[in-house]
Amino acid sequence: MNRRKFFKNGSLLTLGATLLNPINVLASGTNNDLTFRGKKAKNIIIIISDGMSIGTLNMADLYLSRKTGMGTNWLQLYKDNLVSRGLMDMASASSIVTDSAAASSSWGGGERVYSGSINMGTKGEAHMPLWQKFKSVGKKAGCVTTVSITHATPAGFCVNEKSRHAQDKIAEKYLEQKFDVMMGGGDNYFSSEKRKDKKDMYASFISSGYQVVKTRKQMMGAEDNRPILGVFADDGLPYSIDRENSKELLQNVPSLAEMTQKAISLMKDHSEGFVLQVEAGKVDWAAHGNDISGLIGDQVAHDEAIKVAIDFATKDEETLVIITTDHGNANPGLIYGNEANDNFDSIQHYKHTNDWILKGLGKETSMSRIKERVKYANDVILSDDEAKKLLSYYTDLKTEDGLYNPRHLPFKVLAEIQQQHNSVGWISMKHSADYVELAMFGPGSQMLKPFIKNTELHYFMLEAAEVENNF
Amino acid sequence: MNRRKFFKNGSLLTLGATLLNPINVLASGTNNDLTFRGKKAKNIIIIISDGMSIGTLNMADLYLSRKTGMGTNWLQLYKDNLVSRGLMDMASASSIVTDSAAASSSWGGGERVYSGSINMGTKGEAHMPLWQKFKSVGKKAGCVTTVSITHATPAGFCVNEKSRHAQDKIAEKYLEQKFDVMMGGGDNYFSSEKRKDKKDMYASFISSGYQVVKTRKQMMGAEDNRPILGVFADDGLPYSIDRENSKELLQNVPSLAEMTQKAISLMKDHSEGFVLQVEAGKVDWAAHGNDISGLIGDQVAHDEAIKVAIDFATKDEETLVIITTDHGNANPGLIYGNEANDNFDSIQHYKHTNDWILKGLGKETSMSRIKERVKYANDVILSDDEAKKLLSYYTDLKTEDGLYNPRHLPFKVLAEIQQQHNSVGWISMKHSADYVELAMFGPGSQMLKPFIKNTELHYFMLEAAEVENNF
Repeated sequence: MNRRKFFKNGSLLTLGATLLNPINVLASGTNNDLTFRGKKAKNIIIIISDGMSIGTLNMADLYLSRKTGMGTNWLQLYKDNLVSRGLMDMASASSIVTDSAAASSSWGGGERVYSGSINMGTKGEAHMPLWQKFKSVGKKAGCVTTVSITHATPAGFCVNEKSRHAQDKIAEKYLEQKFDVMMGGGDNYFSSEKRKDKKDMYASFISSGYQVVKTRKQMMGAEDNRPILGVFADDGLPYSIDRENSKELLQNVPSLAEMTQKAISLMKDHSEGFVLQVEAGKVDWAAHGNDISGLIGDQVAHDEAIKVAIDFATKDEETLVIITTDHGNANPGLIYGNEANDNFDSIQHYKHTNDWILKGLGKETSMSRIKERVKYANDVILSDDEAKKLLSYYTDLKTEDGLYNPRHLPFKVLAEIQQQHNSVGWISMKHSADYVELAMFGPGSQMLKPFIKNTELHYFMLEAAEVENNF
Repeated sequence: MNRRKFFKNGSLLTLGATLLNPINVLASGTNNDLTFRGKKAKNIIIIISDGMSIGTLNMADLYLSRKTGMGTNWLQLYKDNLVSRGLMDMASASSIVTDSAAASSSWGGGERVYSGSINMGTKGEAHMPLWQKFKSVGKKAGCVTTVSITHATPAGFCVNEKSRHAQDKIAEKYLEQKFDVMMGGGDNYFSSEKRKDKKDMYASFISSGYQVVKTRKQMMGAEDNRPILGVFADDGLPYSIDRENSKELLQNVPSLAEMTQKAISLMKDHSEGFVLQVEAGKVDWAAHGNDISGLIGDQVAHDEAIKVAIDFATKDEETLVIITTDHGNANPGLIYGNEANDNFDSIQHYKHTNDWILKGLGKETSMSRIKERVKYANDVILSDDEAKKLLSYYTDLKTEDGLYNPRHLPFKVLAEIQQQHNSVGWISMKHSADYVELAMFGPGSQMLKPFIKNTELHYFMLEAAEVENNF
């Protein structure tokens, strides 16, 4: 279907009679149908757990249920029958298994592009990014993430760029478009000391009227009436569990929920409404590292951001909240066995990620120091053989590859050791083709069908907000 | 909630006002809402793909889409907005990760039991199986499966038995209950030559008025007015793809869709209605063997049974069709890479399962014969090292374990070799904890919430059929 034509033929309300079926008119559930029916989505918040296989959601839910008696906010919305749900096919133009750039572009630009590209089509054409469309009709627009703010997922809603790797250029393009809230990591792409061209992007943002914040405290104190750039780390932010177990990080780096709350505060009073992307970007990094406490911790941090968004939307009544992921990654799962329950529950004692463990080791590290570090982080006592095997990757320059593993640290080896103790398995250290979970709350959610293509979500958001797609 | 009490307080229709919310009253979709609303489910067909991780459904859908241009019937129901969907928590009384006996018992008996048990509670109490409840109110009841008909999943709807392994006893209990259709494999548990007690169960069934069929042709010719026992293999039936590529099997063994069709024919004209369980049991065995062409082929066979059920239910208008799985297994997925598409498409050339490949090898097999067999089955040319490695499991008595691998054949090694060519990965050879996909079509489907516990499905079926739970 030509979506542009389709939309021009009728408003959302008149379309109801022909296209929407009864299930969907009321699909937002008991508490919402009367409130939301017929309303347009003045605001949209899309919350993405990057690289979340269904097993990631499942294990985060089991983890919280068994630890606290309450599962995830995400699945609580299902239990309370408050959302519409669908499966979504995330293929890129080049592959059944997408990368995050093509995935975000499919939503952001409404077209499938080759993996690695940001809203640049297969024939070199540029697709106008969704947050630019919403800006052009007067809405405020922003992104918050736990990876660099110039990373693929936020970039895919905001700019056109041939390669996702051109994060320096992406930072400049953000400034051109004057997005209202941009917060995450990525000092490497803004700092004059770290950029190749030595440009001081912070100075440029400030001279364009931005407030620039670099700590949690500064962010909390920022004014609500000016655009904001927040950069809290060189590249990605620390994993949630590492942050929680470090006084310094806890003080200096905001959580995803805190960034989400601040972003909403900064934009919620705008008369034309706002659009906000929230990304738990390091769920993907943890899956690439088969790093279970990174994975569950950051999925839980994502879940806390869901609560912030739903609490706001419930009061606001004009906000569509979309919760999803851009692709599977590593398809982790808890494996059957007599000790499955106890092994899984042992993860509750983990204090740090495998990233934290491995980056704290070196070829000079003694066997006893390795054992001590793993005991501290995981409450697991390594055998001599296991410790020796880990150490061999530092001393003999054995290498493991991996997208977020430039130092070739032995993430796979450590995950295999841990599996004996926690019963969690992984199919690989890469993305998977699984169709992804998609849930919606609020006005517009009633239109969601149980199965959609990724590109349809672009037009869905425009239609829910009653923004004509005549760009 | 005490379900028995709850049901006694009101009929399904009066419950509507207080418990059902507007979304659900209409949830069966465009074509169904007017037809099904307010009707009770006279018949129920539950179709179970045993051990289906979400990646199994995803890959079967991708496989069919790329081969034929049309995906699965299961997901077509989603695309056409014809079903209600939920996630289901399948934990057993003993573990987050269930086995098939406890899973089927949770549905069949309405209570969580220890893994391995068939409707015998944690205190030794017997829970009345659902198909007995439906029989007692006058409905016909049956099961068809691709594993032995005395296996855990059919048994869990039909009988009480301390151990799922007591398949001899389960066969006798089926006769006591006089189920109307029982078809699958399992000659080992009915034949006087193969049973330990030398009882001739076939003779007993015949003297109780059953027609006994042992070939596809006999099944096709069976009369519609008498109960039937169909047993088409010693234990499990052949994998779908092995059957399709063997003239003899194709002639002698019915497909799951054919058994489903026959079962419906045998029971559809009964004035009080019928209940039927359809199980693609060997999807689970294939996952235990990391056997991709077994997995996809049998998932597709399951999907063809879905079509038979939905076609009947669409005409009948009084049949609730439930489509689900009892647990994840091995969490398979297609892995990211430049060759992912081509590698995945290479599976279209597979002619046989890994089960077929490995059972045809022995320690006397030559290197060239191994290569020939794998080339014939997978269109893959093994390296000398790969062939040698496989052969070593036969010559040096290296062993692999596995639930359905009594001969300790090298399924894991073969899957690892194949992964280089087909990009499919597996987390293990065991069940996983993932919440499972659940879809419903027809009267009653409107009551489904987006997240339920396995035991709720027991009461759900009774309520949909308006059968009071006063047993």
